[in-house]
Formats: sequence, C-alpha cells, structure tokens
Amino acid sequence: MVVAAQSLEELCINSIRFLAIDGVEKAKSGHPGLPMGAAPMSFVLWDKFMRFNPKNPQWFNRDRFVLSAGHGSMLQYALLYLAGYDSVTIDDIKQFRQLGSRTPGHPENFETAGVEVTTGPLGQGICNGVGLAIAEAHLAAKFNKPDATIVDHYTYVIMGDGCNMEGVSGEACSLAGHLGLGKLIALYDDNHISIDGDTEVSFTEDVGKRYEAYGWQVLTVPDGDTNTAAIEAAIAEAKKETTKPTLIKIRTTIGFGSPNKQGTAGVHGAALGGDEVAATRKQLGWDYEPFVVPEDALNHWRKAIERGAKLESDWNAAFADYKAKYPEDAATFERLLSGKLPDGWEKCLPVYTPEDKGLATRQTSEKTLNAIAPVVPELIGGSADLTHSNLTLLKGFGDFQKGSYQNRNLRFGVREHAMGAICNGIALHNSGLIPYCATFLVFVDYMRAAIRLSALSEAGVIYVMTHDSVALGEDGPTHQPIETLASLRAIPNLLVFRPADGNETSGAYKIAMERRKQPSLLAMTRQALPNLDGSSIDAVARGAYILSGSDDLPDIILVGTGSEVSLCVTAAEKLRAEGHKVRVVSMPCWELFEEQDEAYKNTIFPKADQKRLVVEAASSFGWQKYMGSEGDIISIERFGISAPGNVAMEKFGYTVDNVVARAKAVIGK
Amino acid sequence: MVVAAQSLEELCINSIRFLAIDGVEKAKSGHPGLPMGAAPMSFVLWDKFMRFNPKNPQWFNRDRFVLSAGHGSMLQYALLYLAGYDSVTIDDIKQFRQLGSRTPGHPENFETAGVEVTTGPLGQGICNGVGLAIAEAHLAAKFNKPDATIVDHYTYVIMGDGCNMEGVSGEACSLAGHLGLGKLIALYDDNHISIDGDTEVSFTEDVGKRYEAYGWQVLTVPDGDTNTAAIEAAIAEAKKETTKPTLIKIRTTIGFGSPNKQGTAGVHGAALGGDEVAATRKQLGWDYEPFVVPEDALNHWRKAIERGAKLESDWNAAFADYKAKYPEDAATFERLLSGKLPDGWEKCLPVYTPEDKGLATRQTSEKTLNAIAPVVPELIGGSADLTHSNLTLLKGFGDFQKGSYQNRNLRFGVREHAMGAICNGIALHNSGLIPYCATFLVFVDYMRAAIRLSALSEAGVIYVMTHDSVALGEDGPTHQPIETLASLRAIPNLLVFRPADGNETSGAYKIAMERRKQPSLLAMTRQALPNLDGSSIDAVARGAYILSGSDDLPDIILVGTGSEVSLCVTAAEKLRAEGHKVRVVSMPCWELFEEQDEAYKNTIFPKADQKRLVVEAASSFGWQKYMGSEGDIISIERFGISAPGNVAMEKFGYTVDNVVARAKAVIGK
Repeated sequence: MVVAAQSLEELCINSIRFLAIDGVEKAKSGHPGLPMGAAPMSFVLWDKFMRFNPKNPQWFNRDRFVLSAGHGSMLQYALLYLAGYDSVTIDDIKQFRQLGSRTPGHPENFETAGVEVTTGPLGQGICNGVGLAIAEAHLAAKFNKPDATIVDHYTYVIMGDGCNMEGVSGEACSLAGHLGLGKLIALYDDNHISIDGDTEVSFTEDVGKRYEAYGWQVLTVPDGDTNTAAIEAAIAEAKKETTKPTLIKIRTTIGFGSPNKQGTAGVHGAALGGDEVAATRKQLGWDYEPFVVPEDALNHWRKAIERGAKLESDWNAAFADYKAKYPEDAATFERLLSGKLPDGWEKCLPVYTPEDKGLATRQTSEKTLNAIAPVVPELIGGSADLTHSNLTLLKGFGDFQKGSYQNRNLRFGVREHAMGAICNGIALHNSGLIPYCATFLVFVDYMRAAIRLSALSEAGVIYVMTHDSVALGEDGPTHQPIETLASLRAIPNLLVFRPADGNETSGAYKIAMERRKQPSLLAMTRQALPNLDGSSIDAVARGAYILSGSDDLPDIILVGTGSEVSLCVTAAEKLRAEGHKVRVVSMPCWELFEEQDEAYKNTIFPKADQKRLVVEAASSFGWQKYMGSEGDIISIERFGISAPGNVAMEKFGYTVDNVVARAKAVIGK
Repeated sequence: MVVAAQSLEELCINSIRFLAIDGVEKAKSGHPGLPMGAAPMSFVLWDKFMRFNPKNPQWFNRDRFVLSAGHGSMLQYALLYLAGYDSVTIDDIKQFRQLGSRTPGHPENFETAGVEVTTGPLGQGICNGVGLAIAEAHLAAKFNKPDATIVDHYTYVIMGDGCNMEGVSGEACSLAGHLGLGKLIALYDDNHISIDGDTEVSFTEDVGKRYEAYGWQVLTVPDGDTNTAAIEAAIAEAKKETTKPTLIKIRTTIGFGSPNKQGTAGVHGAALGGDEVAATRKQLGWDYEPFVVPEDALNHWRKAIERGAKLESDWNAAFADYKAKYPEDAATFERLLSGKLPDGWEKCLPVYTPEDKGLATRQTSEKTLNAIAPVVPELIGGSADLTHSNLTLLKGFGDFQKGSYQNRNLRFGVREHAMGAICNGIALHNSGLIPYCATFLVFVDYMRAAIRLSALSEAGVIYVMTHDSVALGEDGPTHQPIETLASLRAIPNLLVFRPADGNETSGAYKIAMERRKQPSLLAMTRQALPNLDGSSIDAVARGAYILSGSDDLPDIILVGTGSEVSLCVTAAEKLRAEGHKVRVVSMPCWELFEEQDEAYKNTIFPKADQKRLVVEAASSFGWQKYMGSEGDIISIERFGISAPGNVAMEKFGYTVDNVVARAKAVIGK
C-alpha cells in the first residue's frame, strides 16, 4: 500500500492515535477507540485554542480541560506528553494502567499533574466542567476590573454518548444553560457507539435539540474525522457566544484508522491486537515503531511550552499591574490561591452555653454559615431547592445568577447529583473557593457517586445534610435516613459529622473548612436540641470525647451522636441518681476519632470497660466496632414511619426511660 | 361575598382541594399546594379516562396511576376516597401523616391499596411509570391475539417541576421515547413554583422541547386551573398517539383558590393556617365543614364503583373467552398473576463439582440467567450498556424494542438510576414479571435511591452487579468497590449476595427468584474462581455455612465471601498441614444468616471461639459483628489502585501466604 505523505497536522493527530494504540496494546487493557476518534478535535483544541503552561500545570489562568469520557484516558495522557508536561513522560505512557504509574486506567487529578478532575464514572466530568466554569465566572466577577482582567479562562470538556445518557449531565447542563455560562464549551464526541453497540439500541434522542432546550448554543461538525477546519471554525464560533454555553456535536468514527474495527463497539474498550495494530499502521501510513513520535510532530506539539511560558509571563505582568492598582483585592486573590484561610477566621464561630436557647442543628448550622460568610469570602454554595429547610442561605450575599456572578448563593434546583459534581468542580478549580451544598440527608443516595468522587479526588466539598433521622417525622420512610449514616461512614476519606448541639456544629464546620483535601458531610437535625454542658468546638476535633463521668472506670458508658447525646445526658443523670457510675461520650465524628492515638482512644473507651450503650437514631450497622463485647445499642433495623417526629422517636425507643432501662440491662449483664 | 353556584364538576374538583386542605390542616403538616392546583387535571383524568375498579384495586387490566410528585399525597388519598376505594376512608384522611395510618406522608404502595408505587423522592415515579408501561407493552405483545385482547391499559403519571429537574427522569424519558411507549401519558403540573420559589431561580429550560427531543409527543394546556375541556381534549389526543409517549404540559396555579398564597412557594409544603383556610373557603364558595364532601359530588365520584365493576366483569368475560381459545397462554397468564414460579423451575439451576472448570461468577451468573430464561418466561431485564461485561444477555430472547415488545432483553443505555427505578415499576406492575438489571458493582452509587425504594416498597428486583472488587484491576479506583458492599448490607430488606463459585451463584439466584417482596443484589467477580468442594445451592439459603472443619472447636475460623473463599480454602490446607485445626466458613449473604435461629448461628460461629479471620476484598466496615473479639480481618481501608487485577489483589494482601500469616497471628494471640 502506498500512502500519501502526511501533513504536519496529520502527523500530530496520528501521534495521539498511536500513543493510545500502543499504550493500550502494551497494557493489554484500555480504551483505544475514543482517542483514535477524538484525536482531531483534541489536536485542534490543544493546538489552536487551549491556553496552558505545560511547565506549570497549576498556572491559575489556564483553560481547564476535562475528559468527561474518562475511559479514553490515553487521549489525555497522550496530550499531556505531547504538549510537554513533565508529569507524563514516554515511560509513563509505557506504564499505562500499571501499579504505581502516573497513567492509571482513568484520569486522576491526584496522580497526574495536568489532569484537573477525576473522571471515568460517566457524566461526572461535564458536571465538574460546569463547576469549573462557575468558579471562573464567580472569580472574574469578583476580581476583574474595568481596566484589569486577571481571571479569564475557558473550560473545555470532551464528552461522549455515555456522558449524555447519564441523567447527572442533564441536570448540570440544564443549570449551565440557565446560568448562561458562556465560557463553557463541550465537545460531544458523537460516534454512535457505546459498549452495547450502535447507540440505535437505546439512545436515539435528538441530543442537540435537548441542549437547545437547556438554553445552550449547539453547533455541529458533520465530519470530525478529517475536517479540522470545521472543528476550528466551530470552536471559534463557540467562543464568540458569551452568554450561553456551547455544545459542539462532532460526528466522529470511533477507532478511526483501524480498518476492521473502526466504527464498532469492538474498538471501544479492548486492545486492538497485534494484527489490527499492524493493519492500522498501514491504513494510516504510520511507519514508526511503538511509542515513537516523529520529530516534526513532537517539535510542533512542544511549541506549547514556549507558548505557555509566554501566556503565564504575560499574565504575571498583568497581575503585577493589578496588584499595584488594587492591592487589597490582589492580596485576597493571592490568599485564595494559596489555599490559606484568613488569619483568625475561626474566631467567628458561634459559641454556646447551656443557658442558650436550644436550636436544631440545622439552625446552628445556619448561624455558623452566616458567621463564616462575611469573614471567609471564598465560601460559596447552596441547596438543591431546599434552601429554607436546609437553612443554607448566606444572608445578604445575593444569588449567583446570570448577570450577578459575584454573588455567593447557588440555586441548584432539584438536582442533587449534579450539585455534588458541580461542587467537586468548584473545589478542584484550586482557586481557594470552598463549596458547600445541601439537601435532606436521605437524598445523599441521589448524589453518592459525586460524594465518592469528592473523597477519592480530594475535593474539600462541605455537604450540609439536614433532617437526619426519623425525628424529621411526618414525611415518613422515603425521607427518613436509617442506613444512611453507616453508608457514609464506610466511604474512605470522607469526614461524617453528626453534631449534638451548637458548639459541636461550630466545631464540625471548623474542621470542614480547614480540611481542603477531604470532603466533610454534616448531618443536622430538623428538631431543636439543648446546648450541652461540656460540649466545645475543640472537642469535635478529637472525634469523640467525654461529656461527663471522666473520673474513674464507670459502670457503663453511654455513647451518643447528634440528637441522641442529650438523651444520654438526661438518662445518665437518672442512672447516677440511682447510684450508678456513668460516663457520657459524645461521638460527633468516627473518622476523627480514628485519627487519635491509642492512648486517647483508651481514655474514652477503656479496654477494661466493655459495657457500653450506643444511642443513635439509625441502623446499628458498623457500631459493633465501638459497642464493646458486653455492650448494646438502641438502633433502628427497619425503615421508618410517617408520624410526628416525637411520636416516631418514641416508637423506636428514643426516650430517656428506655435509655435508662436498656443501660441497666447492660450493667446487669 | 356572593359566589356563583358551583357546577357539579366544580364541586367534584373542589372536593379534592378541600380534602387536601383539611387533611393537611389537621395534621399541621403536608403539601396542600399541589393537590389544589392539580385537582382539575386529576378529576378529568379519573372521571373521564382512568379505568379501574375501586373495589378491586388489584384488578389486572386497570390503568396505572402514579403520583410522581409524591409530596402531594393528599391528592392521591382524596382521589382514592372519592372514587370509593375501601383503603382510604374519611377517617383515614383525618389521620393523615399519623402513626399507623393508611395515609402516610408520601404514597406508599405497601400501606395503601390503590397506590401502585412509592413516591416522594422526586423523579422516581415517572421512571416507575416507564417500567409499568414496559410491563404492559411486554405482556400485551406476549399474550394478546388478533382476536383477543386481555392486556390493554394506560399508565398515567402526574409529575411536577421537581421531577423534571431530577436527572433520573431524563434518563427514563429518553428511553421511553426511544422505545415508543405510546400508552404512557405524563401530566406535567407546570406551576412554576418549587420550594425555593419561582422556578425562574434555577429552572428556565424549555421542558416541552426537551421531551420532543426525547421523541415524545408534547401537548400544552395553557389554563389548567379552569379549562377542563382543554385538559380532556389533550388527554384524548394523547391516547390517539400510539407510537410515542405523551407529555401534557398543563399550566396551573399552585394552591389555586387560596387568595393570599396561591402561586407562591408558601403554599407548597405547609398547612395554610386557619385564617387562610377560611379565606380559601370563601374564595371558592365552599360552605362545607372540614372533611365534608357535598352529596352531589360524592355521588358523582362514586359512579366509579359501578363503572369499575363493569370494566372488570367485561374483562373477566373477555378473559374467559381467551381461556377457551388459548388455554395454554391463559394458564401461563394466570400463573404469572398468581406470582407463582413454574413447578420445579429450580431444577434448571446449574450444579458444579470441583472438577468443573473455574469460571468468574459473572460467567456462572450468565449460565444461570440463561438456564432460568427458558423455564421462567417472566424473567426480563438487561444491563446499563455493559451487556458483554456483565454477561446478562438472555440468548435467543431478542431485544425489547419498538416493534418487538415481546422480547426480554432490555437495553437500558448508560442510565443506571433510571434502570433501577424502571425495574421497580416492572416489579410493581404485580403481574408476575421478574425484572433484573446490571452494571458494575461500584455504580450502584448511581442508582442507590432506586435500590432503596426497591427495598422499601417490596419490589423484588434482581440486581446483577459484576466487577465486585479491586480484582477488576486496571480500571482503577473509580471503578473498584471498597465501601460498596458495606453500604448495601446496611440497607434494610435488601439481600446482598457475594457468591464464591458456581453453586453459590445458582443458590443466590434461587433465593432471588423466589423472594418477590425483597430485592436481591448479587455481587459477581470479573475474574475466574475455582468450584469449591462442599459448596451447594441449598447452603446459600442459610447465609453462611461450613465448607470444611465442622467436626470440633477449631483453632481458628476463616470466614470468606465471594472470590476470597477459595483463598481461605487453600490457606486452611496449609495451616492444617502445620497441625492447626481450621474451619472455613463461606458467607454469601449476611441477611439470610441473620434469619437463622441462634442454634444454627452458634454452629457456624461458636461463642466459645472468638478467633476468626475474615477475608474479603473490601472495607472492614460492619464486619466487627462477625469477627469475634479476638479476630482480625484482611480488608481495604482506602480507595483502590489501577493495576492488573492479580497485582492489585496481591498489593492489598489477598494471597494465600498472607492469609496463612495473618491466621497464625490470630491463633497466637
């Protein structure tokens, strides 16, 4: 076969394709189809549009790139390598999907510099993109001046059919259209193939029309395999539309260049195999050995280094000007980028005494959020349409809407899953913004995939989850968490708080604000709770602490969390009146307790004392770890019931009398 | 104020409104706004179109009604009461949201006859509706004959803005459009109000256009408050379109009739208050005491009883004809409705011996599904675009597509959440169909809200979840379950199976097929496992059983699940060779083990023997319950890693040598 000489552009594009082919082939695992099909759009985007500095992947004003179709990770690794990032060398590409490599199966921001967010679970990346675009819009509105622009970047996303089938993308894109995020541009790799075959089997909707319905600009490139000029024109047009996000529907052939597999599901998620690799080399006229990029192509690609250095130095100069003119704003901006909270910010946290009127922890949460908001301008967030139930409004800070991006209250609508994923994007913008979001605790089930990604990708999102037990009452079992706390505590790297009163609420927020590489989830009551004698902000940092009865080995330890701690306190008084030695432990956060040393743990739960009674209005699942071998638990092992909250609590045994009775049973064992 | 005399229709409509107003007022809790606004469309639907028999809520051929906006539950209770269902009396309405009532906060199918599915968590109901429509289409294609129609009903759904914001509804409605489910009709209560206020704050997309993009017929009723003729015409038109589902966008006023609150979020989720109730009575000319329905209205409503009796007796006659002509089909149909599996069906389950080649449990699952499929025609299901990874295709049974509804392989697309909710609808069609669905285990996070509702609403869905541990390998931490098993085991009423080999896979399916009021989730391996000596189908029913070492009190009990059981078996051999007495327990299902009596439990885990080593490639969360006070566990307390599966397993200590070493440490304690 005689193949026409390749243009430099073709060389550059085929370099992506063959790095992906060879990387997957060596690993005998991975997804070559997407990189092969999306290579042209990626080349055009990275070569002609994307502003970034390969030698400083964290340069603030870079355009953000998200591969929402994360299974095509070799595309991203190829781009990073070709563009000259130090994080991905040719050896890293050869180590694709191997233990300890910087080129894992899916793009992971915590493994590979230049990867902005962790993708793979479909639909998440485009939502992260909406979050990145929100962060940019917010900071631009806040810091840019008529005569000085320091925040100005685009967010580009490559998404596939899978991303578009996932409901979470619909939620986020509906919101993005509503907000008019003009600097969000999604390239839809429209290849008509998903794992089960042609999208004809399950996905025949008109995607473009749907995005138009969301309020997006929709552009189409009918031939994304070879017509790079059309791709370039479309991206240019997308950038011109500043009041709407843009979807560019680019028709491609999955596995382009593989003579026997292109355009089929066979090339989606498996190595091509030696014969087909050879056939593809022939088809595309690629005479190079595996992992060899022709010099002309590499030279061209690596121009990104010089371009990037210039972009950053220009920006640095602009920022120096800005700093001279607007020193206070610049100082805030620099503090944000450093990730440091304002000195002494924690002094704003409300402190309570037992004399203070008891409030629901959703109310003390509201007070805390509103105490923090004026002091910590980087706090931004909102609720999934439950603002006045979750009590998460930052009063006086306005709504983040089209035309008022400087404001800090996000109105997510009834879109829990996208809310979490968007907050991940805001957090991973890495510009110091601290996102929080809210719904009823039970509805974490709607957004769990996003919460898991917060924990995995080290996104310090704060989840404010109210109505945290059957005590929410009448809404009944669909709304009453039972297994929810356990299911959250099981997630690695997630801090789960269940504060017992005002001080513990402040203490939980203190940690949540400070831990920027760890998400926190706060479970709050609907109902009022007394402020406890002995609670404090600092105590929360230990995860569990003694509220009363620390002096010597007790007859029993009552362990409570959240709304059940005050029950334990009152029950303890009754038990003491009857002559029992009782310790009350409040345990607002298991994960922080696990961080303590053995000595501290033993002061709370002495090994010599295995008689404990745990009181938590939830499933016992997992509590055996702390219950003691002679202990017991007042828990709920079924779904809840619709009834007034106090009635429901009584029905499940959350009364002082029952705690006293059950405690005596443990003591008498 | 002088109010014009009300027409009978107005009386009927206002009867709904005031039952809702009075019920919420008495409970001092609930959502009056939706019932007040949606009363006209509900009256038209139930009075002019819906075919049902109030005295037999389970009559098979009834139209299905789903209140997807479940918070408006008083609407449904009012309709059930007015139409003459015995399940909701006026006393039940007075007990709205009270302990033990048949009128809980949200509609619950397991509490109230006439309620088809459990709603409240937004978006679920419309997806259930898609499942109900799939069930109808399938049974119609299967049983109807050119000269005899016995399956022929519509599915009507009332949904609100919240349902339309939730991504899960988009997933299901995209699929419904693809499938052309012409007998699904959704009434969109377009009232422009959600809890946070006007939908302008977050939801400004063009919903109708979006549904057109999905392939739906979209009709609009500009005045749904008073123009009942237009509502009637729209529903009639919807019924005429047999090849597409229909969305009827009906513009309404939330809280219609409340002079000071209608059209505001204030009427969404709280009682009107005494003054406003009085004002509303004036406004609507309603002179009746609370809970009193005027006789004319009730008489009209109750005509549904006679109508329903006639509908059912006509259908019974038609079915008798059918039975005479098609006795075999009729027998199958009757068996399906009875919920009884074919006699001796379980003989089809594959049985294995240790000599049989080891297979991945996803492969033994495939064999089992394909063994069951020919014997049990009611098995229907599929995967969320991972058919050839999950191995869930029923071979030779074709795809359920437009024009081939008789087929049994559902192609859900990458829509996990809707998949679960649709399967709930199929199960709760209560026509004997047994739905299964599949994805990677880690992606249960995408569909957890639906799984919870399977468990709560007693929908016997079978969840086939493959790639169940870090042993899946290269895809890495985004795809590797760690906390997933624990998070599922914590859900009440859900059976979680992790079979260790072929026999246990068959055993898990046996239970899953038989438990029709309990969902089952099967966690399957990607990698091959040996067939074990001592495993059996029947043993699975006990939840945990002794594979070897039953004779006397062992030095240690090795407890494994799934892929780690064979590790325990080999390690036990080594330990025995060194003189230790070792028991190996396989524990495929915690929940079934918990159902056993104490005597049985004690034969597995004797109280006298607290030295146990649990081996499971997952988080230890929850295992303390079985680990023993002197026990240990080989678990994973962090997210996974991208590496070949065997490398990942070795990295986390899942090797025979490590099990032996850790077991010795326990013995030596």
